[in-house]
Parts: sequence; structure tokens; C-alpha cells
Amino acid sequence: MKRTWVKDLRDSKDEEVKLFGWIHRIKKFKDFAFIDLRDRTGIVQMVMDKSLISSKIKLESSVLVFGRLIKSEEDNSGIEVIVKSLEIKGEAKYDLLPFSINGREIQAALEKQLDHQTISLRRMDRRWVFTIQQEIVQAFRQFLIQEEFTEVHTPKIVGIETEGGSQVFSLDYFGNRTFMAQSPQFYKQMLVGAGFERVFEIGAAYRAEPHNTWRHLNEYISLDLEMGFIESDEEIMDLEERLLKHVMAHLEATCKKELAFLDVTLPRIDQIPRIKLKAAQEILMDIYGKTSPMGNIDSEGEQLLAQYVKKEFQSDFVFLTTYPASKRPLYTMPDERDSGMTRSFDLIFKGLEITTGGQRIHDYDQLTENILRFGGKPEDFDFYLESFRYGMPPHGGFAIGLERITMMLLGLDNIRRATLFPRDMTRIKP
Amino acid sequence: MKRTWVKDLRDSKDEEVKLFGWIHRIKKFKDFAFIDLRDRTGIVQMVMDKSLISSKIKLESSVLVFGRLIKSEEDNSGIEVIVKSLEIKGEAKYDLLPFSINGREIQAALEKQLDHQTISLRRMDRRWVFTIQQEIVQAFRQFLIQEEFTEVHTPKIVGIETEGGSQVFSLDYFGNRTFMAQSPQFYKQMLVGAGFERVFEIGAAYRAEPHNTWRHLNEYISLDLEMGFIESDEEIMDLEERLLKHVMAHLEATCKKELAFLDVTLPRIDQIPRIKLKAAQEILMDIYGKTSPMGNIDSEGEQLLAQYVKKEFQSDFVFLTTYPASKRPLYTMPDERDSGMTRSFDLIFKGLEITTGGQRIHDYDQLTENILRFGGKPEDFDFYLESFRYGMPPHGGFAIGLERITMMLLGLDNIRRATLFPRDMTRIKP
Repeated sequence: MKRTWVKDLRDSKDEEVKLFGWIHRIKKFKDFAFIDLRDRTGIVQMVMDKSLISSKIKLESSVLVFGRLIKSEEDNSGIEVIVKSLEIKGEAKYDLLPFSINGREIQAALEKQLDHQTISLRRMDRRWVFTIQQEIVQAFRQFLIQEEFTEVHTPKIVGIETEGGSQVFSLDYFGNRTFMAQSPQFYKQMLVGAGFERVFEIGAAYRAEPHNTWRHLNEYISLDLEMGFIESDEEIMDLEERLLKHVMAHLEATCKKELAFLDVTLPRIDQIPRIKLKAAQEILMDIYGKTSPMGNIDSEGEQLLAQYVKKEFQSDFVFLTTYPASKRPLYTMPDERDSGMTRSFDLIFKGLEITTGGQRIHDYDQLTENILRFGGKPEDFDFYLESFRYGMPPHGGFAIGLERITMMLLGLDNIRRATLFPRDMTRIKP
Repeated sequence: MKRTWVKDLRDSKDEEVKLFGWIHRIKKFKDFAFIDLRDRTGIVQMVMDKSLISSKIKLESSVLVFGRLIKSEEDNSGIEVIVKSLEIKGEAKYDLLPFSINGREIQAALEKQLDHQTISLRRMDRRWVFTIQQEIVQAFRQFLIQEEFTEVHTPKIVGIETEGGSQVFSLDYFGNRTFMAQSPQFYKQMLVGAGFERVFEIGAAYRAEPHNTWRHLNEYISLDLEMGFIESDEEIMDLEERLLKHVMAHLEATCKKELAFLDVTLPRIDQIPRIKLKAAQEILMDIYGKTSPMGNIDSEGEQLLAQYVKKEFQSDFVFLTTYPASKRPLYTMPDERDSGMTRSFDLIFKGLEITTGGQRIHDYDQLTENILRFGGKPEDFDFYLESFRYGMPPHGGFAIGLERITMMLLGLDNIRRATLFPRDMTRIKP
């Protein structure tokens, strides 16, 4: 007999059903009990005769149930399963759950919830975050495949630092000092040059940043892309705008139930405003009296700017463009229209940076000079630099932090809620 | 004006076309030159008047071309583009290419090809390996999503060793000793228990194996899945069989051109034979006089067995089942029908192991005992073990090595040809 998912019970034509799941709630009465069964798709109430109840039926036991389906035609919520047999498949062997998971919310601090993440995730409000996250990734992939991009996998153990700085984990690799990739930046550029022209990668990135904040992770998933034969960074922003529209439409179509359950309204995207960094700093000063650090906007500034953009343009997103060269990595294309500036951008979503991108230098000599200008040694970039000798086309790209976009989209208060098993400065378990 | 991909020229309705790509071949004549242009989709011959040719037009320069499309109706290969203008987009700045890439094959050792991988990959016979690999991954994903699996991302920096042994990279993580995950094994099991029920992951796995062979990598992509509420390991083998059929059908539908170009015939899959390890060892002894190591089959044995299975069952695949407990990881489910044996399997494809899988122990007490039996300390497995206290359902799964299945499917002679940027004992660059 085939298993029925809880979500399919309403439309089931069968009266006899076979269910798998976990015991979510038990309410005992004199002669019977109401038992809520939870599977990955939903929760259903079951009615169980006293004679069938054993002491092994504890909360969170996993079970196999054969039962009779009762639907009341009038009442939309009126589905019940009369239990004919219930078999324990996975026995619960605890004295006390770390916290209750069948109430309105978990009564425990986030740290404790994360310590027992495999319990926390049993709640639909926690688990469905990842159902939606999966669809964000799917939408990203679908869109790019339509646009003739190839999905690639590049190594995370690397011989050179891609983003510079001291914020890199190092690793002993058969006696060689190597690094955990801070991004697939160099490799995605090299693959554009290697004839793929358009590549994307969904993979881990590692930052040894000593920050324990609501928006930092030390291992995260980066949605990266790179595209060859572009005219300028404007084309890359156009691409991200179309991509984000596709993501929202995809979520609308695939996650209606989950979004409603989590009480999320998706942002509307028309045209995402593009504001030069310098102009943004002036806006912050003029309207909010807020000073900004040289060549950047701090996180308070990003939030104020988001308010401004929401009010002026009715947009939850804003591109900040034209960052100074001194604030961007050495591969960033200078802006020939504006001395000292670059063809690069950040995308701010509801006040948080979720993307960094731009056009890259593609000329071998210009890149060599830039490495020197940044105080680097060209020989330290040997294989990266070499690949620019052979006709690297103009190119650019960006990366979206998966956990960040998930967090902002779903209105979560901490990035750890958008990660199955977060890694931060103090957490390596579970 | 919109760009036309080379692959679309044949069906193009436009006479005027705009092309991007690399200079693949130059044949100069007195008054004109034939220039082959290569983009990510193919190669087309262009005719260029002498007056347009400059010294900057070197092999592998990347260019923008405007031209007139000439198609001869009779001759199927008769497509040419008469160049009206050609602009260098990425200048080639080398004295000599590391090796020629426009001949019948690359005249250089594999190591040298890998040193200059971004050149090697410009050849279609090298790059299209990854077009096909992308579709293997897509087929894996599609099939599992249809089967109600959720795609997940689990951390690669982990606090405990998942597969045991000394073959693990260790990493200093803010002063803590951590490891690079040898597999997502523990996490995928935990997520089954956490209510996802069915999960898969496409991600990196790290093995510090000190082997430099044609079939080992130290960083590779593992196609992992885990499924809850199963009856036995037979169900997991059924799943893999259906999955592989889907992969072949998907490749047939999406990669016709690439497979033909690489001269690959896909294997037919009907029913994959399932042979107990012990019976396989007896077959090897009886037919080939080949002895096997205790509780295993060596790589020569795998190849002989593949011959046998091909002859007897016309199958390129064979499941080897019922391995002894002493040869499998501590989480492997004992086989209650056969003392000392387990409900586990390997899948051999054309003589090479591409999958290890099986049913896992789901009972908390049994798993604790097994950790002790293996000489481990339960407290070293704290968070993994804890998640078995709360009604872990019967479950199992498997992993396919992506580079291995790609190599065997395409008949490549070395796994490094199925990896964009391979990592082996001596190679961390590019």
C-alpha cells in the first residue's frame, strides 16, 4: 500500500490511508486520544482508541499509521484519521525534550535552539525557511540556464587568496600551506576566459572574519555568476534585476503555502534605482545629517538609505554604484568616466548588502599594473594572471549571499535562522 | 543588435549577424584569410578581406564581429560569415601558446594540460565534458525533487570526523581543531530525523588520502541523498536504479550533440544485478582464479566482475551487497538475516566503484553500542548521537562520486579530466 503525504489527504480518493510521521501532540481523554501526526508536508489530527495506546507513544516518536480518512464536506479544516493500527518505527528515548516544539513558538534562546537544531527544525516555521531557500536557489539556477550559463564547481582548497586580507582560513594540505576559498572569484573569471563565457556556481565560501553579528557567517553559500563579452557593469546590474524578478515570480508560484504560513509578502521589483556612492553619501548627509566613512556607507547608513529609497522610489532594493578603487578588490575595473572610481556596485536589500559585483579588468597589462599598485606581487597570482594572456574578453559578475537574501526576504532577525547548521566564531556544532 | 550564438547560425533568419568569440584558426591567402571563430557553442568559418587584418589578430584573441551570413542550401556544412568588421575585445599577449589547441588533439602530457587548464578547456572535447556533467547533476536534482526530496547545504567545516580514519584534513578554526567534512553523512541523516525525511546535497567532500591515482581526488563533488521511512536497503537500491535510468534518459534528451561529438554511447539500464559480496568473491575465484581480500574486492576484482556481469547480464552496472560489518562505517545497519553482515552496498560501473550506500542504524541504543564496538567514545559523537534520541525513523541513502560517474560514462582515462580544477596530493594550482 502506498504512503499518502499529509498535504495530499484533502484530495485523497482513498478511505484507507497509510501515513508516516512523528507524534506532534497528544491529548488524552477517558476512552481515546487525539494525536497529531506531523510529516514533512503538514500536520493531521488522528483519533486513537484507548486500547491502541502504549507507553512507547511519546512525543516525537516516529510511526507508521494505517487508518480511515474522515472528511467533513462543509468544514474546510475537518480532516481526521481514525487510527486502525500504529507502529513505532523510531522509538523516542529521552527523558525530557530540550524544549517544547508544539506550542506557538519555541521557548528557548536562539543559541539553545541551534544547539538542538535537529529538534528545532521539526517545526514547520523553522523548516519551511529551507523549503523556500531551496526554491530561491532553483530560481537562480533556472534563470541562468535559460540565459546560457553553465553551472560549475570550483575548488575550495586554493593556493592563493582571492579577496586578500587576513580574513582567510589556512589549511595544511600534504605539507603545503593552502587556503579555504573566500570566493570563487578567480576561478569563475578564468572559466569565462576558458570558453565557458557564462558560468555560475552555488557553493561554499569561507571568511575568517572575527565578527559574531546577526548578519555574519564564517561559512556561507554564495550564489556566484560571471559573464563574458559585456559592455559595462550596467549590463550586470540589468542581469541581476531580471534575475531577482524571476526569483520573486518563482517563489510566488512555488511557495504560496509556505510564504503564507510564514506571513511573508514578497517585494515588488520594477526598476531598481542606481545611485552613485557619492550621491548616496550626500543624501545621507542632507536628509539625515549622517556622515559616512570615506568611500563607503556603514550599516546604519545602508538602513537610512533603504528608508529613503523606499519612500522616493517605492523600492526595497537599491544599487550603490561607482565605488572608489581603493575600497574594491584589485581586479575591479576602473571607471574611465570618473577618475579613481570603479565600475562596481553593491545591492542593498531592505538596508542590508546582499550583493557585491561589477565589471573586472580583462587586460593582462592593466591587471598586472593594478596588482603592483595594490602592493601585490604578480608572481603570487601566477595562474590567475596567466589566463589573462590569451584573449580574456570584457567580463563582470556578482555574488548573492544565499543566507542573507533568505533572511531579508523572510524577515528573520538573525542569519543563523537561514542556515541549517551555522558556523560562527564560537559554533562548530552541530 | 543582438548577438547570435554560433550554434544558431544555421537556423538564423538574419543575413547580418553579430558574433562574439575567440580566433580559433587563421589561414592566410594572398588577398584574404579564412578565420575560424569559436564561441561556447561551436566554431564557424569566416572570410576576411586582407584590408581588415591587423597584427593584433592572433590566435585566441577574443573579438566582436559584424558580418554577412552565407548559407549554401545543398551543403550541410556550408556556412560562412563574410566579415564586415572585426574588433579585438580581449587582446592576446603571449609569445607562444603553451600548446596548440586547434589540432586533432593536444600534444602535451596531461599534467601540462592541467597546468594550463584555462587553455585546454577552450577545446570543445575538453569543455563539453562539463556541459554533460552539468546535465548529470541536473538529472540527479530533477529526479529527486520529483520524489519529494529537499536540496540542502551542510557545513564542510565540522567538529567531528564522519567517516573515521586518519584521512581527514584538519583546520585551525579560531583556535579550535576542526576537520574538512569527508562526507555530509551525519548531517544528511540528522536532517532526515529533523523532519525533512528526504534530503539530497550536491557538494564538496574532502579526503586526505595519500593516493595519486587515475581515480582519486582529494576534493571531489559528492551527489548525496538520504531517505527516511524505508523498509530496507533494497528500497535504496531500487531508488538508485530508477535515478540512473532517469539520468541516462535526460542525457539522451539534452546532450545529443555533445555525446556524439565525444563518441559516447550511453549504457542501457534494465535491472541492475545485485550480488552478495561473498558470492562475487566465489565467482571471481571459480571463473578467474582470482583471490580477494577479506570482506572486500580489490580494483582488479571489480574489473573482472564487471566483465562477468556484462557477459551474464548484459549490464554495465552491478550492485555488490551484504558487506561485513567490520568493513563498513559504524553507522551501517547490521543484516539480521546474516550474522556479521550489513545492509549495505557498493555500485560498480564498468569496473569502478561509483557509489557506496545502505541502510543506517536508527535506534539510539544500537548506535551507541556500535560506536563502543568500533572502539569509539559516544561523547565524541555528541550532537550526532543526540539526534537519535527523538524518534529517528528507519533510513538509508547513498552517494555517487560526480567525477567518477562522469569519467566512466564518457570513457575518460583519468578522473582529472572530469574535474575543472583537480586537487590531488601534488596539485593545488590552478
